[in-house]
Amino acid sequence: MTGPTITTRTVRDAAFDVLRRHGLTTVFANPGSTEVSLLADLPEDLRFVLALHEGSVVGAATGWALAREQPALVLLHTTAGLGNAVGALATARVNRAPLVVLVGQQDRRHLAQEPFLAGRLEGLAGNYPVRVESPVRAQDVPGAIGRAVHAARQERGPALVLVPMDDWAEPEEDLPLAAPAAVRMPAAADPRAVAEVARLLARAASPVLVVGAGADTEDTWATLSVLAERLDCPVWQEPFGARAGFPQDHRLFAGHLPADRPRLRATLDRHDLVLCVGAPFLRQYPYAPGKLTEARVIVVTDDPAEAHHSPAGLAVVTPLPDFCDRLVRRTPVRATAAEPEPLRRAARPGPPAPGEPLTPAHVLAALAERLPADTVVVEETPSSRPELHTLLPARAPLGFLSAAMGGLGFALPAAVGVRMGRPRRPVVAVVGDGSSLYQIQALWTAVHYGVGAVFVVLSNGRYAVMDKLAEQHGGKPPWPAFSEVSVAGLAESLGCPARRITGYADLCAALDAICPSLADRTEPLLLDISVTTGGTFLP
Amino acid sequence: MTGPTITTRTVRDAAFDVLRRHGLTTVFANPGSTEVSLLADLPEDLRFVLALHEGSVVGAATGWALAREQPALVLLHTTAGLGNAVGALATARVNRAPLVVLVGQQDRRHLAQEPFLAGRLEGLAGNYPVRVESPVRAQDVPGAIGRAVHAARQERGPALVLVPMDDWAEPEEDLPLAAPAAVRMPAAADPRAVAEVARLLARAASPVLVVGAGADTEDTWATLSVLAERLDCPVWQEPFGARAGFPQDHRLFAGHLPADRPRLRATLDRHDLVLCVGAPFLRQYPYAPGKLTEARVIVVTDDPAEAHHSPAGLAVVTPLPDFCDRLVRRTPVRATAAEPEPLRRAARPGPPAPGEPLTPAHVLAALAERLPADTVVVEETPSSRPELHTLLPARAPLGFLSAAMGGLGFALPAAVGVRMGRPRRPVVAVVGDGSSLYQIQALWTAVHYGVGAVFVVLSNGRYAVMDKLAEQHGGKPPWPAFSEVSVAGLAESLGCPARRITGYADLCAALDAICPSLADRTEPLLLDISVTTGGTFLP
Repeated sequence: MTGPTITTRTVRDAAFDVLRRHGLTTVFANPGSTEVSLLADLPEDLRFVLALHEGSVVGAATGWALAREQPALVLLHTTAGLGNAVGALATARVNRAPLVVLVGQQDRRHLAQEPFLAGRLEGLAGNYPVRVESPVRAQDVPGAIGRAVHAARQERGPALVLVPMDDWAEPEEDLPLAAPAAVRMPAAADPRAVAEVARLLARAASPVLVVGAGADTEDTWATLSVLAERLDCPVWQEPFGARAGFPQDHRLFAGHLPADRPRLRATLDRHDLVLCVGAPFLRQYPYAPGKLTEARVIVVTDDPAEAHHSPAGLAVVTPLPDFCDRLVRRTPVRATAAEPEPLRRAARPGPPAPGEPLTPAHVLAALAERLPADTVVVEETPSSRPELHTLLPARAPLGFLSAAMGGLGFALPAAVGVRMGRPRRPVVAVVGDGSSLYQIQALWTAVHYGVGAVFVVLSNGRYAVMDKLAEQHGGKPPWPAFSEVSVAGLAESLGCPARRITGYADLCAALDAICPSLADRTEPLLLDISVTTGGTFLP
Repeated sequence: MTGPTITTRTVRDAAFDVLRRHGLTTVFANPGSTEVSLLADLPEDLRFVLALHEGSVVGAATGWALAREQPALVLLHTTAGLGNAVGALATARVNRAPLVVLVGQQDRRHLAQEPFLAGRLEGLAGNYPVRVESPVRAQDVPGAIGRAVHAARQERGPALVLVPMDDWAEPEEDLPLAAPAAVRMPAAADPRAVAEVARLLARAASPVLVVGAGADTEDTWATLSVLAERLDCPVWQEPFGARAGFPQDHRLFAGHLPADRPRLRATLDRHDLVLCVGAPFLRQYPYAPGKLTEARVIVVTDDPAEAHHSPAGLAVVTPLPDFCDRLVRRTPVRATAAEPEPLRRAARPGPPAPGEPLTPAHVLAALAERLPADTVVVEETPSSRPELHTLLPARAPLGFLSAAMGGLGFALPAAVGVRMGRPRRPVVAVVGDGSSLYQIQALWTAVHYGVGAVFVVLSNGRYAVMDKLAEQHGGKPPWPAFSEVSVAGLAESLGCPARRITGYADLCAALDAICPSLADRTEPLLLDISVTTGGTFLP
């Protein structure tokens, strides 16, 4: 009788175990030769998702992470891959998406001689990653992945682990990882901070709520709704927020705050207290001189950076759901002189007159009439974003998603990732044609993996928002239109079914056919809708 | 009588003057709102070139800079733009392309509050830029651009200038710029270093030349040819070089060195001295243990970093043309025992037999028979690169161009930029279909600006090199093929004429029609050629 066969476990085996422990069994990737030693014979329980450009890899992983509220796993190829992904990683950070990003590197044993594909990887994504791990020996890789998972989850952004290709085959070290198997994070609010805010609210003559992306959870929507009702105060959405912090079909929802100081001051001028939840106070776009508001400002956020740069009387850094819950319990129904004015929603435009061309508003209104309430609308149509906010209110958490800091090339892959992560929710990306071109490659991933997202492209053959901005600036733009481009043709050439739509009847027929079964789709579809430009841009 | 009208010149006016002084009057750009204040009413003498993704913007500028041997000007949009361009900027650095990169930023007056589009720009491209200028006040912008031009030119890479959008309209400061109007750089070699190398060469029993990308100039090709003839020694091209350092149709050209140590040692084993010019000694790809060679090694390069990491007995950091010229003058004709063996070039494959599918070698051989000697071949076909080297030797300086560190998405935009910069040279990009998908957007720029480059796409519907590497690794790849993609369809949807080619007769007919007039083309053309994969990959 002989003893059992001794198998030598490798760093690769140990790394897979760490990934499995944290549920990181789907890997979004665009691999190169430095990743072959990790990927060849990938265990069957790990799912590989290919995208044809690294911006799409990271964008899809970002959507997946936000949809599942869990870290997503990404694999990139040394400088060639990480370099192409930096914009998307910055978006992931500002959108607060937890990502664990493995970056392949050349062989450690000749790295000093800078072989082909050797990357200067540290610092390559600037200070957007929440953490960058560079294991100094192979046996440190599994622990580095463990720490990256914790950092990605706690600080909500991309955590990078740089791994030389020879590390994977090295023998595992039979010691506990230098990372806990599980980390518990604070979820409870400080009752004293709650009491302080409750007192300030009670003393206010006319409070107002401002909500932002950080408040986009089921719990927070619910408690903020009760809070608003007790205060009987209007609720505004922060400007240029990446997500909706409040049900936008609620009677107290007042709309999206303007993004410049004069209009902001006018909007808030009858209030003496602004309670800003899940947003900094306050993301602006065009600069104008002066204060943001004369009112006292309280910022409540779980993002320390957001708190620290807000010109507020008080900022509370806290987990939001418990804070909001406790605040509601300490907030009595307020006796108010008058109901807040209801939101004067812009009327949905009627159909175009015969011969009148389609506008973005026609398309958005047609969508508004048909989209289920739980649809995830992924937005990347800069010139029509104000209209989209007016016509397509977010009616469920994650009902609206956009790139927090304006990086284009997010919506297409993010929509793919959201739909993969939440396969029962309708997902509709509403994008400009210019925007669609930054990561058109994402459509192939949708096709290949049977992802039933719908892409509504508002095609005007130009960067319409740029044209409007140049006009407002009073100058002639040097950038041309790109009327040579067919977005539908690009989609079809990537294998994605597409329809060209030029008229209202066609639009309605297409949406009538598509919208009832959005939740059940197993293939993507792109609608390339010709629209006119025009109107001013006043975000 | 009144005096002349006093006009107040702005920082923008001063910046344009700096750009004009340095010949930076073509701006490769993908702009956003933070660049409107610079671009609206751009002066007529500045030419604007739009690309639809930042990778294509920088790739085209890189090709333009390399083709003209002058800095190129790039304009990017805060993190959204710079982030998308990082991979291409890294390639520009490793390919030693001088770029002056203006990066727009939000308005300085509220940057502290992180408005929408505010970028964490410093360090965003890691340590790939040669310089990053962050002017601390508007009046410092023109001088910062001046310094960036000098840094880009002297250190040959991208130099970034980060400019808040409000700076352009500020009044110019009436003081000399903090940058010289012109910089002279060393061009002369040190005669003592030349003598030292000449002595070592004279003592060698069997010297060999290794040439690399740094030697790809008209002057250096000429002097190295004479040197090789006097030494009567073989000349090898470095492995994975981005450019050819020697005429590859010269009788002494021996081929491309293998990229791994065992084959490298075997190749060099009869030599006692390696003179490596314009390359580090020596870029490897797969790791293997042991020395690179037993011979004495001399590295002669104008890149200090290349010198510093080379395991050489002597490294000379010097301008190359004067060094090579002086070295030739000190090198007598050597009496040798035997002529070096002539290069055993692989025979060009004949046409495929009836029913036999096209291979990359058939395509490359068909090109070899027809391309003019001064064609710029821009390569991005990883699985066929060794065959391309064998079948398509570089016959003129800039006859071969590739991404130095392996970043994909370079060839398409670089070919566009090269052709714009050298409008009389034939330009043919030879790319894999997988490679073509990283920056397919570049085709639109070619169409819109009438750029007559030809794109030869070797389409096998998969990442062939990755499949081969996995097979050599002995494992099953988890990445799928992407047979849903039509590269010709993508090209046509971007407005670029395209032809699908599946057979040899079609191929020859197409090339016969195209090749004689390559120098005169005013529109791009893409040939989407179906090829089989197969063969081993032994770089």
